[in-house]
Order: sequence, then C-alpha cells, then structure tokens
Amino acid sequence: MELLDDAIEAILDRWPVAALATAGDRGPHAVPVVFARAAGALWSPIDGKPKRDGELARIRHIRRDPRVSLLFSHYEADWTRLWWLRADGEAEIRRAPTEGCGAEEAAALAALRRKYPQYEHVALLGPDALLVRIAVTAQRSWCASEEGSAALLAYLSPGAVRDL
Amino acid sequence: MELLDDAIEAILDRWPVAALATAGDRGPHAVPVVFARAAGALWSPIDGKPKRDGELARIRHIRRDPRVSLLFSHYEADWTRLWWLRADGEAEIRRAPTEGCGAEEAAALAALRRKYPQYEHVALLGPDALLVRIAVTAQRSWCASEEGSAALLAYLSPGAVRDL
Repeated sequence: MELLDDAIEAILDRWPVAALATAGDRGPHAVPVVFARAAGALWSPIDGKPKRDGELARIRHIRRDPRVSLLFSHYEADWTRLWWLRADGEAEIRRAPTEGCGAEEAAALAALRRKYPQYEHVALLGPDALLVRIAVTAQRSWCASEEGSAALLAYLSPGAVRDL
Repeated sequence: MELLDDAIEAILDRWPVAALATAGDRGPHAVPVVFARAAGALWSPIDGKPKRDGELARIRHIRRDPRVSLLFSHYEADWTRLWWLRADGEAEIRRAPTEGCGAEEAAALAALRRKYPQYEHVALLGPDALLVRIAVTAQRSWCASEEGSAALLAYLSPGAVRDL
C-alpha cells in the first residue's frame, strides 16, 4: 500500500537522508545525501572541499542529464514496518548564495542549518560550495502495513525525540 | 577515506538492505532491495506476486539495460560514523530454480533463507518468481573515520547480535 499523505510530507520535511540516483558515465550511479526542503524544492549541499577526482560525479552527471531519483527508505528486521518513498525530479546545480544574492539558495541553507544541528560543528560550505536543487516531478511510495505508516508519522512528528 | 576491505566483505555478506538503481524509462530509478551473496554474485529476489502495473519496473529496466548500481549505506546523527559502499554491476534476470535445475539459483535461494529468518514466515517465491543476479564490476566506498569502519566491522561480525 502507499504511505499516508501526511507521512510523505513528514519524510520530505524531516527524514535525514536519501539515496540520490543520477545517470552516470557507465550506468546508474547512487550516493547518499543529506537534504532539506525550501522554496518549493529539495536541496542537497556540496561542501566545496577539493575532491580526489575533481568535480564530484553527481555534479558532472546532473550537468549532462538533469533527471534524478531520490529514494527515502527504512529497513528493520520487522518487515511489517518497511516503507520507501521515491521522488523523481529534475536537478540543477546552483552556486551557494553570496551576500544579498540568491534568496532561494539562502532559504535552502537556512533550512539545512535548521534541520541538521551537525552543521554547528561541520562546515556547511567551502569557498566553491554548490547546491543541488531538485524539483520533484513524480512520487511513488510503498509501505508494508497501515501500522508502519502510522508509526512513521508519529516518529517524524515535530518535536519527537529521534535519532535514526 | 575508504572502508576497510574486511568491512566491505562483511557488508556484501551481511548488510540487510541496498538501494538498487536502474536506468528507468524517464531517468534513473531506485528501489530498496534485500539481497544475498552466492555463487560469485549478489542475488535479489522478486517474489512473483502479481504487481499492480504488470512487470516490475526494475525487471523491465534491466532487460533493456543491464547496468545497475547497488548502494549500501548507514546514517546516524553522529556524522563521524557515516559510511557507504557502492557496487556497480551488470544485472540479469534468472528464473527461480525448478527441481534439479539451476544450481546457482538454488544456492542463491539457500543464501537468502540463511540470511533472512523472515523467510520462515514470508513467502520467498511465488509461481512466477524471478531472481536478479548482479555481477559486481566496480566498487567504491567512503567512511567518515577509521573508528566508523572498525565499528561497522564489529557490528557485522558473524555471531554479533544485531537488528538494524
């Protein structure tokens, strides 16, 4: 069965991690990402630290083919509690905002800082930081039971104490 | 840094879930899968229950383009413990074994039953069951710290009591 609509909204607002699938040089490519919802899209930061192989693969892929898929999912030994949500979308690469410019990008960074207290200690942005902006165009979900969807919703309710 | 080799082997043998990315009709497509290692490959079962939209998307995609990517990953609030492993490979669709035929497929089913006690209560195979066989051709891994890689290895050691 599908996830409850409220559960889908809660995942997009508050689930901490997703698998980002892009069209790679030699087939599909997947990597875990953090993300936040802001200004009508999902945003995932690229910290701008120099990478071993130059530009990150996901950036190169998106510049060539903007179609991406984000998978949010939960596994546990009790298979009646399994669920997943897939959001397909169009991605674009944005520069991190500079002072006074980039209202959407600034909203995205603020949302990332609100969502992830880790950014109090981890640098969110280096000098060449980028943001992946994903406009969701289609969604599909599944959960093993109504109880699983309801439990997820309780878990993700604002104010719930949680540590994935 | 990369994961320790032993940690990579432990993930492929004992981690319970992966995101399977395939080349979809409208871009990359990702879905969570269970899997087991047997006969030199990774195997993921398709239970054979009738699907709402006919043949599962992942099966249709693989028949057209066998290139896939499997992402194994771990998230927690302590970002020094993050890790991921990506295994790129070539997939093919195999029929579940019939009596006396399909030694590789039989080994795959035995490995799935050993790995997932859930299959004592959940049907592993329906009448039209299929197996996705993935021959891994490339691997890439990352972990945030040596301690994270060592902790993962301890967590996945045979005999460790664990519930993801």
